[in-house]
This record gives sequence, C-alpha cells and structure tokens, in this order.
Amino acid sequence: MLQIIFLGTAGSLPTPERNPSAILINREGELVLFDCGEGTQRQMMKARTGMMRLGHIFLTHLHADHFLGIPGLLETMAFQGRTEPLVIAGPVRTSRLLMHLTAIGCCSRSFEVQVVEMSPGDTMSLDGYRVIALRTEHSVPSLGYCLEEDDRPGRFNRDRAVELGIPVGPLFGKLQRGQCVEVNGTLVRPDQVMGAARPGRRVVYSGDTRPVQDVEDAARGADVLIHDGALGSEMAEWAKETRHSTVAEAADLASRAGVALLVLTHISSRYSENCAPLLKEALQRFAPAVVAEDLMKIDVPLRE
Amino acid sequence: MLQIIFLGTAGSLPTPERNPSAILINREGELVLFDCGEGTQRQMMKARTGMMRLGHIFLTHLHADHFLGIPGLLETMAFQGRTEPLVIAGPVRTSRLLMHLTAIGCCSRSFEVQVVEMSPGDTMSLDGYRVIALRTEHSVPSLGYCLEEDDRPGRFNRDRAVELGIPVGPLFGKLQRGQCVEVNGTLVRPDQVMGAARPGRRVVYSGDTRPVQDVEDAARGADVLIHDGALGSEMAEWAKETRHSTVAEAADLASRAGVALLVLTHISSRYSENCAPLLKEALQRFAPAVVAEDLMKIDVPLRE
Repeated sequence: MLQIIFLGTAGSLPTPERNPSAILINREGELVLFDCGEGTQRQMMKARTGMMRLGHIFLTHLHADHFLGIPGLLETMAFQGRTEPLVIAGPVRTSRLLMHLTAIGCCSRSFEVQVVEMSPGDTMSLDGYRVIALRTEHSVPSLGYCLEEDDRPGRFNRDRAVELGIPVGPLFGKLQRGQCVEVNGTLVRPDQVMGAARPGRRVVYSGDTRPVQDVEDAARGADVLIHDGALGSEMAEWAKETRHSTVAEAADLASRAGVALLVLTHISSRYSENCAPLLKEALQRFAPAVVAEDLMKIDVPLRE
Repeated sequence: MLQIIFLGTAGSLPTPERNPSAILINREGELVLFDCGEGTQRQMMKARTGMMRLGHIFLTHLHADHFLGIPGLLETMAFQGRTEPLVIAGPVRTSRLLMHLTAIGCCSRSFEVQVVEMSPGDTMSLDGYRVIALRTEHSVPSLGYCLEEDDRPGRFNRDRAVELGIPVGPLFGKLQRGQCVEVNGTLVRPDQVMGAARPGRRVVYSGDTRPVQDVEDAARGADVLIHDGALGSEMAEWAKETRHSTVAEAADLASRAGVALLVLTHISSRYSENCAPLLKEALQRFAPAVVAEDLMKIDVPLRE
C-alpha cells in the first residue's frame, strides 16, 4: 500500500478547518512525514495513524508553520517509550533549528534524533524506496521532495517459460527473483521469461514554492503531485511576492508534467471555508485535480 | 462579563478529544490566557475568541504540554499586524524558555514580548483585577494563579439619601463615586449612604499540582476553582508519584475551601473518551463539580 494522509493543509495561518502543513505517507505500514506544523501529533491521533512506525520527517523549509509540531511529537513519542531512532531531514540550518527545539523539551529523550541537511539533488535511500530533494524557490532556503519506489520486477511470462521446457515449480520462482536456471543442459536467463522492469509509484511534494523546473521534471509521469496552491489567480501578484504558487500555475505545471493526479495544498486562510473557486480554476486547466482537506486520505495504486 | 473558555483540557498527552492545557479568561473583553499548550491558537480560532485583546499569558510551569503553543500564537499575532506588547509570566526560567522559543521564530516580531518571572505570593495588578501567584507542588518549579477582581462599591441606599435631604440628581453620583457632598450646610459622607464594598469575582487555577494549602486558601469562597483532576482514586499512587491530584483530592480541597464551583481539568488520556467515572467520584465528595471539556465556556456571574 501507499497511502497519503493530509494532516494539515492550511497556508501560513491555521483556521478552524485547516491545521498547519503536514503530509504523512504510509508505505507498507512504514510512516514518512513531510513537514510537521503545530498540532501534527493530534492530527495523527485523529487519523489513527499511530506514531511508532514513523521513521523519517522531511522538512521543506524552516518557516514555523512547517515545523512547530516537532517538539510535541518528540515529547509524545518519548512518553510512549519509543527507542528507535528518528531521522529529521531538511534544508540548511535544520541542525540549528533542532538544537533549539530539543533545548525547550523538558523530558529526557528515550530515543536518538538524527538530523540530515539535504541539498537539491541529494537522495536518501530507504527500504524499497528513496526520497530525492528538489530545488524549489521560496522566500527562505527550501526543498521539494520526490518519493519514488524502487522498480518492481517485470511481469513473468508463464507461457514462454513452459515453452522453454521449464517445469512448473520452484524454478519459476528462481527466474522471478532474477536467477538463471538450467533445464536439460540449457541455461535460461530471467530476461527470456520476464518483461521489462516496472517502475514503482512516485509522489512529488513541492512544499512552498513558485512553480519551478525541478519539480516539473521530478513530476513527469508521477502518480501524484502535491503542489503549493495557496492562492487564486486574482492574487497572482501576491503569490509572486510571497514566493507561493497560484492554483493556475500549479495546474499548468501538472499539465506539462503529465501527472496522474494533482493535489493542491497550503490553502490560504481566505479560501479556508470555501475553496470551490480554487478547484474550479485548477480544473479549467488540468484534471484530475483536488484541493486537499485535513484528514483526507488518498490511496495510490500500483500501475501496470 | 467574566467568561472562562477551556481551550485545552488534556493531560500530558493530547487525544483526539482534548488539546493540551490552555484556559482563557475573557474579562470585559480583555483576554488572559493561563497555559498555552500546542494548538492553542487554533482552539482560539475554533472558539472565536479573537487574539488582538490578549494581553497576558500566565504559565503554571515549564512542561512542554503547557507552553508549546506560544511560538505559533506569537507568529500568528505578528502576521495579523499586532503592535501592542504582550506579557508572558511564569515561574523561574520562563525568560530562558522564551529566549529559545523566540529564537526558532522566523518572522520578525511586530510587537514586544515582556517576560515576568513570578514567585509564590507575587501579585500582578491589572486594570480592575489582579493575578496572584500561588505556591503549588509539581515535579518542576510551578505556580497556581488566583484571578481576583477589585472590590465593587457597596449598594447605594437611595431612601437613606433622600432622608438626609439630598436632592435626586448629580449629587447621588458624587456619593456613589466616593465623594462627600454638602446639603444645607451639612456634610454627607459616602459611607452614610453606601453599603459595604462588595467583593469582585475570584477564579483560582491550580495548574499541575498535588493538593496544597496555598491553593485551598486562595480558593476559600471563590467563584470557581479549576483544579488538577488528572486521575481517579484507583491511580492515587501514580498521582503522588507524578505530582498530580486525584479528582477525590481536588473535590475534598474544594469542599474545605467552600468554592461555588469546582472544574476538573488536565484529564489523563485514559479517561479522554469517557470521563464519567471521574465526575462520579468528584460528585460523591463535592457539588457542584464538572469535568472540563475542550471549548466549554463558563460564565461567572457577579454575586451580591
């Protein structure tokens, strides 16, 4: 499974409807968090995601609405007796931030927090997938992230295997795992019975940013693009000034990249109660597109 | 008006139902906040309290569940263009905490934050009321607080004034404002026509603490006592160990003090979904008593 859980979808100001930024990805039971705005731990409780299997937090930038949930989350995990280390990655100065955040904690930590500062192009390889940092353009040093699963093996051609004289049974499994087998003195290679490797799923998260090439490139053919869609086009000048994107800009980028689904987030408080105008503007340029809502969940299926 | 708004009523761990500690008092439109757990700003938005008229925050102690809402609240008030100074008071080391909290903020502050470290017995005099710090007993330096309105003038005895020959009109007002007046060559003093001064309202908040004498004394005859009621009596040993109170201990203290209303808060997560056993235990010892809930509001009337 690969499920995206929108824990916080607000712009810089939270609202009664929207918590500050936080997006959780549950991949085969392992949790990865992107940004961690104030109140994230309680949103995790409301979404019943658990916390124990959270291994990594990736911060897009160091504005308070993207990280103030960290100390409370660490406190609660310590309270619950966590011992596994937690990795917190982000742009330059993430270490300095974490120093201050842990200094205000009052509980002794029962687990280690490892801080990793990433630059655009850096890749963190994880179990079955990787997270790549993307160059973005906000008012402070910032990153986007691309979560990309490892390739899956190609489809096994059973008929072809039988044709080559391979008996139904354990030799099939060997070939599927990429090993050669010998049948009647002849060597059969996996590539004779396996289709081309199939790409894994790919989810791209822009963080707060102007529309940029690096995000577009990473999103090419992606399953889901989660993009800054803070403002409508009537606020285009303000979007430029504050280094955010309009939903039209996000939709145009999604269209050029040919993503399977666009999700708009970091919704300005002016649209908190009624984001219909944003959705309309996006859909005039690209479909399918949705405006994220707090506690919304999206299951990303494997594609053939 | 004097209204108490419970913004966060959780114990050390928040739950889907309960935000970490924060209690707001709206006195004649002026807002005073006691503790400021993570998510307080959003709870204020949900309760539609506004933020601009928040002048003071009083922290009972420096455990994270009581202060992590401060940086986000400061950010949002700066974002909204606040210019009035804000006072944050608390026990020893509050200055050091604030230094770290403001160091992680990314926005420049548009207003001044004045930090005041208080000791038990210290009084902060405000416009029409005062806040007195109380000695409490928790696992770190801690304070309770007593918010006490100034005395109101006694009742004006109109019949007596007429009897003394004072003509109906502006001289009545003079006497009510505490000034002497002369009628037919005779001086009439305010105390001849005014009843005894009437006490203002009094609300006492214990913060996290074992039951202690200082809180009991401050609560004697108080309108509302908000007390640590983290646990039921079946957890009495744990309450002692963690320096909290059971609801039975809080109810006994309320009974000795003769308060008009007991409100139990800082509810342990074990009772979050069902706090009926806590309420039952309290009511067996003292009434009226209620278990606080998030966004609950209590209007405190003037008493004659």
